[in-house]
Amino acid sequence: MLADGVQIRNKGLDSMEVDTLYHIGFSTNQSLKEMFGDVRFVCMGGTAYRMEKLARNIVRDFGIKLPTGTDLCDLSMHSHRYSMFKAGPVLCVGHGMGAPSVSILLHELFKLLYYAEAKDVIFIRMGTSGGLGLPPGSIVVSKKVINEFGETSHPFAVLGRRIDRPCVLPQDLADEIINVGRAVCPDVTVVGATTMSANDFYEGQARLDGAFCDYTAACKQAFLSELHSERGVTNIEMESSVFSAMCHHAGIKAAVVCVTIVERLQEDQITCRAISLDEAQMRLQSIVMAFIKEKLHWGL
Amino acid sequence: MLADGVQIRNKGLDSMEVDTLYHIGFSTNQSLKEMFGDVRFVCMGGTAYRMEKLARNIVRDFGIKLPTGTDLCDLSMHSHRYSMFKAGPVLCVGHGMGAPSVSILLHELFKLLYYAEAKDVIFIRMGTSGGLGLPPGSIVVSKKVINEFGETSHPFAVLGRRIDRPCVLPQDLADEIINVGRAVCPDVTVVGATTMSANDFYEGQARLDGAFCDYTAACKQAFLSELHSERGVTNIEMESSVFSAMCHHAGIKAAVVCVTIVERLQEDQITCRAISLDEAQMRLQSIVMAFIKEKLHWGL
Repeated sequence: MLADGVQIRNKGLDSMEVDTLYHIGFSTNQSLKEMFGDVRFVCMGGTAYRMEKLARNIVRDFGIKLPTGTDLCDLSMHSHRYSMFKAGPVLCVGHGMGAPSVSILLHELFKLLYYAEAKDVIFIRMGTSGGLGLPPGSIVVSKKVINEFGETSHPFAVLGRRIDRPCVLPQDLADEIINVGRAVCPDVTVVGATTMSANDFYEGQARLDGAFCDYTAACKQAFLSELHSERGVTNIEMESSVFSAMCHHAGIKAAVVCVTIVERLQEDQITCRAISLDEAQMRLQSIVMAFIKEKLHWGL
Repeated sequence: MLADGVQIRNKGLDSMEVDTLYHIGFSTNQSLKEMFGDVRFVCMGGTAYRMEKLARNIVRDFGIKLPTGTDLCDLSMHSHRYSMFKAGPVLCVGHGMGAPSVSILLHELFKLLYYAEAKDVIFIRMGTSGGLGLPPGSIVVSKKVINEFGETSHPFAVLGRRIDRPCVLPQDLADEIINVGRAVCPDVTVVGATTMSANDFYEGQARLDGAFCDYTAACKQAFLSELHSERGVTNIEMESSVFSAMCHHAGIKAAVVCVTIVERLQEDQITCRAISLDEAQMRLQSIVMAFIKEKLHWGL
């Protein structure tokens, strides 16, 4: 266990001869310290496509020089499960959709960084989300996360028993990102607020356009309005509860930064009329990149 | 609503001007009936890689002639979320990992096939799993599914309230697949049994090698042994509860067919010593392909 390293809550790991990190395609047979010991940030998002773009943008924006004849490649390609790109001290990883997919990845990334003896690592989830009371293209930095039942914890099943772990995010880290966001994008709405994390995109987020819908438009509206006005929820996505709960449990500083791509008080479908997906992503990435640069005193 | 078509439990859909199926990258602006009206089987599995292989194996094995100068392509490529390949009447779709990822996909596939007016469609989930009391490489066709708390239902959150939908799989369909499996692979253990579906790969499946582990090896062993001997569970995976519950709710015939790649009563890590992943997949695919061929009276 390392004081400022990734905290592993499993004493049995150190006695394993070889640990195969099956879903990300690594094993302790490899020189993990040499490969990943310098990682300081892990950025995670839903698709491999966006995470590859982020890695390439970091390489360009940070002025990272790759050796002639080399290019970034997907480090987890052979596992066929996740996608991972390394841009200097920033690992960019596609986590797929939903809590279970994030959960597997975090277990294996925590172990990877523990074996690599990486220090002071910050995890940032960069997501798309539905906004409540916000114009599409707004940036929400989560200060608080609730699950789909309104609880401030994420339920885990451990040997068939339910264990609720609190969804805690460091407030100072969130504030730092909010400040950078407002400085980088002065014309964009950047808020620190409460995020609701659902296990489903349709019924779980009160959409009317799923294959199943047993409630009326009025019931939907009442539910979302109450979430917004009573609970202070400004966006809904699908990964922040497990992400914040697991990072907190591992003693890792973590942030959830999302861009809204639809105003859920007005519509369900993602049409990207107000802002294109690419533009929304670039906005989100530029803020996170500026924050990382500042944090690393990059180029100073 | 079509009597033998996909049952949509949402009366509001028919009044939508355009329905964008965001995560699979289609919309009702397209000629969905022309494109997908002939679909009779939907095969789903965790990775795009395996589903593309399945589609290519079906094309070859079924003798499907593609026009000169064409090749199969990923129909959902532009959504960057899922991967979908069409091999004649069989749609092969990668569903990612975990229940939420499967849930989004099923909502959109049910709608796609409803709009396409596809008839008598059978959904088959083809997965990898940890086995209990079975040699790696065994085939388990689920007759019953329980969730990670041992319940025979999957919990959904609808407007913040929990609704449990039963995990029901048609027994006759499972039996048909078991019979085909035993005929195609006479030397392989093919069983019809109970599958446990977890939301996590590590703690949720009582593994000792996660980033968190607060229980002893003895507790793990007791939990898995009880699951096996008392509850009749022969394999554990992460998608069958939401899959069986949603297909049943939509009135769609569905089956879960998994290959085991590790004997969980003996080990946690997936080392593929006993059977390679490719061999395990080929075994699973050959059984499902033989079943589909028989069902369609293909080539007769």
